[in-house]
Amino acid sequence: MDPADWDIVKSTPLFGAMPLQTAQVLVGNTMPRQYEKGATLFLQGEPAAAFFIVLDGWVKIYRTTPDGLEVVLHVFTRGETFAEAAIFLGGRYPASGETVAASRLLRVEGTAFRSRIEERPALAMSMLASASYQLKFLVEQIEQIKVRSAPQRIADFMVRLTQVRKGTAVIELPFEKGLLANRLGMKPESFSRALAHLRAHGVTVERGTVNIADIGRLLSFVEYAPEDEA
Amino acid sequence: MDPADWDIVKSTPLFGAMPLQTAQVLVGNTMPRQYEKGATLFLQGEPAAAFFIVLDGWVKIYRTTPDGLEVVLHVFTRGETFAEAAIFLGGRYPASGETVAASRLLRVEGTAFRSRIEERPALAMSMLASASYQLKFLVEQIEQIKVRSAPQRIADFMVRLTQVRKGTAVIELPFEKGLLANRLGMKPESFSRALAHLRAHGVTVERGTVNIADIGRLLSFVEYAPEDEA
Repeated sequence: MDPADWDIVKSTPLFGAMPLQTAQVLVGNTMPRQYEKGATLFLQGEPAAAFFIVLDGWVKIYRTTPDGLEVVLHVFTRGETFAEAAIFLGGRYPASGETVAASRLLRVEGTAFRSRIEERPALAMSMLASASYQLKFLVEQIEQIKVRSAPQRIADFMVRLTQVRKGTAVIELPFEKGLLANRLGMKPESFSRALAHLRAHGVTVERGTVNIADIGRLLSFVEYAPEDEA
Repeated sequence: MDPADWDIVKSTPLFGAMPLQTAQVLVGNTMPRQYEKGATLFLQGEPAAAFFIVLDGWVKIYRTTPDGLEVVLHVFTRGETFAEAAIFLGGRYPASGETVAASRLLRVEGTAFRSRIEERPALAMSMLASASYQLKFLVEQIEQIKVRSAPQRIADFMVRLTQVRKGTAVIELPFEKGLLANRLGMKPESFSRALAHLRAHGVTVERGTVNIADIGRLLSFVEYAPEDEA
């Protein structure tokens, strides 16, 4: 394992938000291995023996249906881990894994990994902290990407505060506007500007009270996605 | 804790993908508590004593700068947990927590929580499995939301396979198109249609080889975001 390999390990969500030393203890002194395209890593139903960190290449995870059809569940690449849930939970692999391109993988043995954690539960806590940090980051990213414009994001927040789906609606903001801007990932100036824009969509705000002229119209504004160019 | 409260606990990423019984053991027999608006839950620098699950309401996490300025880091609501990283890692709260609306919270004591896990490392494994399942789900969601149209998603995948950023580029697809469609979350038909659309952007695919007439042009297509309506 050279430093560049450790950088990849540290770019995975499970090992990202922890000191490098902790990641090194968890992974152990495993050496990366080169696999050719088409190498079977494990088969559905086998006892789960190891999980993998992709340093390079592509791996598919698939299931075979009773009538022999192959259903691909995931395709993993550099900076991603797979089969770790099977190792955390013990038991058997719920699906099969196979390289679909030449790949460089780090194979972490389940038994050794689990006994490291059993000896030092603090290691599990580090992984949990890393995972929880990443989860928050991703949830935030999704909230901010999903609805594109600032006015759409505010409108989305507002319509979620009421069950009304037709006609006019009056909503009390649960807290002050500054916090709302923060929750929605906006600067105060952009927030005020976006709020002003919402007037054109029948939304007026006075102190903490929001008046929506036509919630159906606002809902379609929230869901409005400009046509794809192609 | 009534069943509806457990539904909320089960909607959090950390407790989502595990049996209800496991979640119940982990959370313990804590009772939810009602907090008024403006209640201080913990202060930055205090030893981390508990983490919280929001059953209802809104909580802000903030830091106070040396010159007394308050900087809000997060605003949490129903179905979200906060301060769990401080509990996983031990130590002190890195920020303060305060309700910004009347809130119903489940407060999970750190000491009890940690000793439950130390006695039964399998509990930590369940949380790790749940977190890792959620992480994958969120990463996938982000990939699929970020670039909106199917042709944009394919183009985005292609430009990442080369370092070329100007002029023509020739790329080898790392694996067959069926897997690529899967990785990008598309049905085979939509994938073929999207690929055909890309011809208008100077992209032709022959077997596994992709010819890009002008990668700069394709990059601007990937980054193309229609103007916000407002």
